Amino acid sequence: MSTMENPENIVWHKCSVEKLDRQQLLKQKGCVIWITGLSGSGKSTVACALSQGLHMRGRLTYILDGDNVRHGLNRDLSFKAEDRAENIRRIAEVAKLFADAGVICIASLISPYGKDRDACRALFPEGDFIEVYMDVPLHVCENRDPKGLYKLARAGKIKGFTGVDDPYEPPLKCEVRKIMLLCRYAFIVRMLISYAGVQLIDLQIVLQQKGTDCVTPGEMAETVISYLEEKGYLQA
Amino acid sequence: MSTMENPENIVWHKCSVEKLDRQQLLKQKGCVIWITGLSGSGKSTVACALSQGLHMRGRLTYILDGDNVRHGLNRDLSFKAEDRAENIRRIAEVAKLFADAGVICIASLISPYGKDRDACRALFPEGDFIEVYMDVPLHVCENRDPKGLYKLARAGKIKGFTGVDDPYEPPLKCEVRKIMLLCRYAFIVRMLISYAGVQLIDLQIVLQQKGTDCVTPGEMAETVISYLEEKGYLQA
Repeated sequence: MSTMENPENIVWHKCSVEKLDRQQLLKQKGCVIWITGLSGSGKSTVACALSQGLHMRGRLTYILDGDNVRHGLNRDLSFKAEDRAENIRRIAEVAKLFADAGVICIASLISPYGKDRDACRALFPEGDFIEVYMDVPLHVCENRDPKGLYKLARAGKIKGFTGVDDPYEPPLKCEVRKIMLLCRYAFIVRMLISYAGVQLIDLQIVLQQKGTDCVTPGEMAETVISYLEEKGYLQA
Repeated sequence: MSTMENPENIVWHKCSVEKLDRQQLLKQKGCVIWITGLSGSGKSTVACALSQGLHMRGRLTYILDGDNVRHGLNRDLSFKAEDRAENIRRIAEVAKLFADAGVICIASLISPYGKDRDACRALFPEGDFIEVYMDVPLHVCENRDPKGLYKLARAGKIKGFTGVDDPYEPPLKCEVRKIMLLCRYAFIVRMLISYAGVQLIDLQIVLQQKGTDCVTPGEMAETVISYLEEKGYLQA
């Protein structure tokens, strides 16, 4: 056992350019917008709309996408429980570095367990962890299935898939929530039409054309931006 | 074995705000300045001077310090060989994210092995990995010993300490190098005076007053800034 493993041997190096200086340069406050929700709930779409909306306002954002990070930093991690927790922990730690850099960091990942999200929140100063919950019913996400993963999970080809054979724990407290009431309504319509013998594929096209969301990703992004404005994150 | 572990199931999400847009916002190009050298060679001091110099020019930098990152992202890693390699890999991956965000990222860590540094370099587009070698002789670093680690290593209390019982492989190619010729000269003077019976402590004070470096950290930082300017990194 090396004494280098003693945390006392790891000295913290302070530097005269601090978070506050970077924030003044950027005219914003560093923070993380943590977007949680089921696969197919629209996390990446909202993350993208948010980064566009903020960029248009001259603000610096950076998206940490759960999937993208698995191509680099977290390429050594599998999808077993402990590795999923480690995936979330590392993303939160990186988001913390970005927030310290003064960047508005947008983390977009399922992060299904409340305890993992709470551990992430605990890394940040009060207020700087802004949890955005994509409250989209499972059947809507599964109906979309943009990556075909629900199909694989239902076929038993993916084990421990959130919403299928692994739970999603909705946030008890979160700063912003996207609720898709219309989708619930659409589901009833879908069921009725299904009973009436209409092919589901037709309805799906109609839903896509009319929009399945009561809130569009753009509207959702605007809600988050208003929240940031109100809380003073869009000024130094 | 879950098919989620198949990389094909991890989709890359592109977003309409790209690196180029962020660079235009910041009026700079994202890159990493990788400062390598022995413990006590002045990596952190140069990193700090560099961030100050660039901040004064209105540029956004962020320092990833090997020691600091061990308090967060890499807190699960020990100092055994494979963990040291993983420490370097993760820092390089995070530096890549910062460079992608448009930030001039300054990574400051011993990174003693050529193959590890080359693996980091390979993550970046040509030119974006700027290696800065703190070419300071071991005896100078050991004489400074700012964290008292050489003393512990010589006493056998730290195993595998770079420069003592683990090698440092100097970069064969690097973009900027700090050479401390005067220190070599000072070493000879120190030896002569030592033979002459003068107390070393007196000489040490003299060396501190006159400066042991042929290049000060500020001058070194300016050299790197000139390099960045010349290569077009201080404009979008």
